[in-house]
Amino acid sequence: MFTVREIAEALGAEAAGDLDLTVSGAAEPQDGASGLLAMAMDPKYADKLAEGNSEAAILWEGADWQAMGLKAAIFAARPRMAMAGITAQLDPGQHFGAGIHPSAVVDPTAELGDGVSVGPLAVIGPRAKIGTSCHIGPQCFVGADVTLGANAQLREAVTIGARASIGTNFRAQPGARVGGDGFSFVTPEVSGVEKARETLGDQGDVKAQAWERIHSLGAVTIGDNVELGANVTIDNGTIRDTVIGDGSKLDNQVHIGHNTRVGRDCLLCGQAGISGSVEIGNNVVLGGKVGVSDNVFIGDGVIAGGSSIILSNVPAGRVILGYPAVKMETHTEMYKAQRRLPRLMRDIDALKKAVFK
Amino acid sequence: MFTVREIAEALGAEAAGDLDLTVSGAAEPQDGASGLLAMAMDPKYADKLAEGNSEAAILWEGADWQAMGLKAAIFAARPRMAMAGITAQLDPGQHFGAGIHPSAVVDPTAELGDGVSVGPLAVIGPRAKIGTSCHIGPQCFVGADVTLGANAQLREAVTIGARASIGTNFRAQPGARVGGDGFSFVTPEVSGVEKARETLGDQGDVKAQAWERIHSLGAVTIGDNVELGANVTIDNGTIRDTVIGDGSKLDNQVHIGHNTRVGRDCLLCGQAGISGSVEIGNNVVLGGKVGVSDNVFIGDGVIAGGSSIILSNVPAGRVILGYPAVKMETHTEMYKAQRRLPRLMRDIDALKKAVFK
Amino acid sequence: MFTVREIAEALGAEAAGDLDLTVSGAAEPQDGASGLLAMAMDPKYADKLAEGNSEAAILWEGADWQAMGLKAAIFAARPRMAMAGITAQLDPGQHFGAGIHPSAVVDPTAELGDGVSVGPLAVIGPRAKIGTSCHIGPQCFVGADVTLGANAQLREAVTIGARASIGTNFRAQPGARVGGDGFSFVTPEVSGVEKARETLGDQGDVKAQAWERIHSLGAVTIGDNVELGANVTIDNGTIRDTVIGDGSKLDNQVHIGHNTRVGRDCLLCGQAGISGSVEIGNNVVLGGKVGVSDNVFIGDGVIAGGSSIILSNVPAGRVILGYPAVKMETHTEMYKAQRRLPRLMRDIDALKKAVFK
Repeated sequence: MFTVREIAEALGAEAAGDLDLTVSGAAEPQDGASGLLAMAMDPKYADKLAEGNSEAAILWEGADWQAMGLKAAIFAARPRMAMAGITAQLDPGQHFGAGIHPSAVVDPTAELGDGVSVGPLAVIGPRAKIGTSCHIGPQCFVGADVTLGANAQLREAVTIGARASIGTNFRAQPGARVGGDGFSFVTPEVSGVEKARETLGDQGDVKAQAWERIHSLGAVTIGDNVELGANVTIDNGTIRDTVIGDGSKLDNQVHIGHNTRVGRDCLLCGQAGISGSVEIGNNVVLGGKVGVSDNVFIGDGVIAGGSSIILSNVPAGRVILGYPAVKMETHTEMYKAQRRLPRLMRDIDALKKAVFK
Repeated sequence: MFTVREIAEALGAEAAGDLDLTVSGAAEPQDGASGLLAMAMDPKYADKLAEGNSEAAILWEGADWQAMGLKAAIFAARPRMAMAGITAQLDPGQHFGAGIHPSAVVDPTAELGDGVSVGPLAVIGPRAKIGTSCHIGPQCFVGADVTLGANAQLREAVTIGARASIGTNFRAQPGARVGGDGFSFVTPEVSGVEKARETLGDQGDVKAQAWERIHSLGAVTIGDNVELGANVTIDNGTIRDTVIGDGSKLDNQVHIGHNTRVGRDCLLCGQAGISGSVEIGNNVVLGGKVGVSDNVFIGDGVIAGGSSIILSNVPAGRVILGYPAVKMETHTEMYKAQRRLPRLMRDIDALKKAVFK
Repeated sequence: MFTVREIAEALGAEAAGDLDLTVSGAAEPQDGASGLLAMAMDPKYADKLAEGNSEAAILWEGADWQAMGLKAAIFAARPRMAMAGITAQLDPGQHFGAGIHPSAVVDPTAELGDGVSVGPLAVIGPRAKIGTSCHIGPQCFVGADVTLGANAQLREAVTIGARASIGTNFRAQPGARVGGDGFSFVTPEVSGVEKARETLGDQGDVKAQAWERIHSLGAVTIGDNVELGANVTIDNGTIRDTVIGDGSKLDNQVHIGHNTRVGRDCLLCGQAGISGSVEIGNNVVLGGKVGVSDNVFIGDGVIAGGSSIILSNVPAGRVILGYPAVKMETHTEMYKAQRRLPRLMRDIDALKKAVFK
């Protein structure tokens, strides 16, 4: 329960009307009700707001709140940024409870900081170090020799393999997997894949061979303020660690191969898949379902549109799209030409008739 | 163990021969044996049926079952529909056992209906309401304030986050994740992604910024008769709930972003990925690996071929394909032209030579 | 802790210098230190090796180890193959511990071979047969009537559904899912999808229908020496089993539909998705994010580049790429033409002007 004043102050935003009015949650404009703060940060929501019954709303700058029948209003300069503040305040959480649940299996050699909670049926392995105020959700697994910084919040069923080292303020959604073994196999003799890569398409006469496993001696290193989505998978490195930089956020079902390094403040959207030994710079944004080939280098600030497939290095700052991914302008030009192709073919037929007959 | 008569009656199908013959399972035509009902619903299976040793088979309409040496036969008008009935009858199940397993951790404030079973090492959170005859599998997690309708069947290791509300006859395969937090982040100032979207490719001179988190205050609402595949992920909505309509089925590793609404009786095939705030109508079929951009609207009855990437609204009833997805005819026309492109280029060279020299 | 001699002998490789020097781990060339074997199997690492402080290294054949200031060296004929041997020797493992953890729930009718370990909070179902020296990780689930060959290594949170039968030396990474129900649904009358498949794009006037479930009576059969990545999903077959052949390796988040058969020694890379009833031969390599339509046949030794979408049968030995996947040469030719398209269009405009004006 917050007053409108408290919320406005937390946002550093202007407010008007009865600032002592309290709200306990938020609502879409049309679903507003007493006690719920309506989210109507754009003039296009004015009509929907009228359908609802909120007494308080967060509005676009300059909105005539009184004409809308509201008792109080907060004004957002940058609406989505205001959303961050409001939702952080009003988040009802998961109610996982405090303390170490008696059904959790905590190795006696594990070290737990002050204020740590461990949910029911969670497992904490030998010599794991859990920082202060970490919340380990129900049925989570924290492996041997894992280091977890302060204030981690692990939702249910998250697993972290041995020797991972993770910074502060880590968040992981249900089923996130840190520290599976890398996918790295080799044939005793040169394989068809190796030959096809060399020749760009011809694998020659290779004999059928079985795959030998290259084990992962490395682990995973994750910086501060990182978030992993549900069912994300991050593999261990082969010799050194796979690395996720400070502030980077990975959406659901993102896959990160062994040895790959992701920089700071990157956003990797749903189902993006990064092969092994990829180097990704800082502030990179990869759209949903983006794929990246192994051993590729992606510069700082690159933005890749959804489903782009990145097969070669990308210089810093570039905006790319397509399969294979190319500069967005190039892609647009190629695509327009492609759409005109059937017409083009008729033109050529006409030309051939005119010229050669 | 069922008689041929019982199965035929359950299917509403014609049968012939010794209707008291019993079967305990089904077999592919060539693997038939005494006690197994051979599945040979198309004349093309006649030869394979002869390889096996079934005494009873389900056959295409009008098949000469006696010439095939069978003792009994059932005739299927619509073979796959008959499969639904037969497999439902013969399903041997998972043997999870009845009652509340003593190792399960059930919050004392949770309400469990009659006939509910809870598997070993499952967790039921505070105030969760589990409808009658629900089967909660081993190692499942049902969060705080979740409502689960009657007859749910949760396989092992399914997790449902706080406040989800789910209808009757829900089925979830292993590792399905309901109610992760939405993937929603914002930078304090305008980001390169916002600029690139506006300009269609140019992100200008943006400074590197960290991402602020928008929390999910909404949850997930799921209708009746919904099925979720293994390792599916469905995120919570930001303000209102993410919604899956009655009768919709999601295959393995499907991802549904925050705020998205999926209509009734949709089929979302393996690894389809739906971004946030997407609106999907009723009876929509998305093939495997289909991707949908955020804020897109997909009308009723749309069918998208495998791996289509849907970047813009799709009107009702349309059949689409490609990256980006276009009408199937358009795609076919474009693709044919593309295949002829190398030849086209030679034609143009010849024309240029003839005209300009 | 191994001597250089022991490692060289295990690899069948030449070695030189102080063969009694011991190492306890491996390091990248620049990170070398006393007690760590530096991995510098290519001349390009010579400079980096100088940055580190290793006393022992594994080097390319003919390298002048003494000039590099090393005390001992091993020479690798095929570097990645040497990596397999070295990493297997030096793998520190997960420290899951021996024996049956008291918190595990093992059904009294399950049969556990000699030397089996079962981690904390794992579940072993009725009549499951676990071969000798299997290691069942923390929070794993092994269902009813599962057969698991000797020497399996299951990481944390792996689940195996009822009736799966799995060969020897099985490895599964965290969250791998074997034996979800197949995704198989049918409408009482012909559906729009069926019509659109027939007509290649026109679904006609179909009425909205609900989906009936086809249950999975089959299970999953997995051969010897198979490895499954994190959050892999493999579905049960409808009548017979879904099959993964000996020696095949599946990377993270690979999906295998019901009834599909994968041959021997295949490599399926990250997020590859195989529909139902697909037949994949032996020694097939599918790159990351490859998709395969249902009922497709892929011959022995096929190699598909990353993100290829395979919509039709592929003959043995072919190297393919693209959406839809075609022969790599064809793809390259088509793609080059596509890149030249905008220029081509200008050529045609010029021709039209010259010819028709």
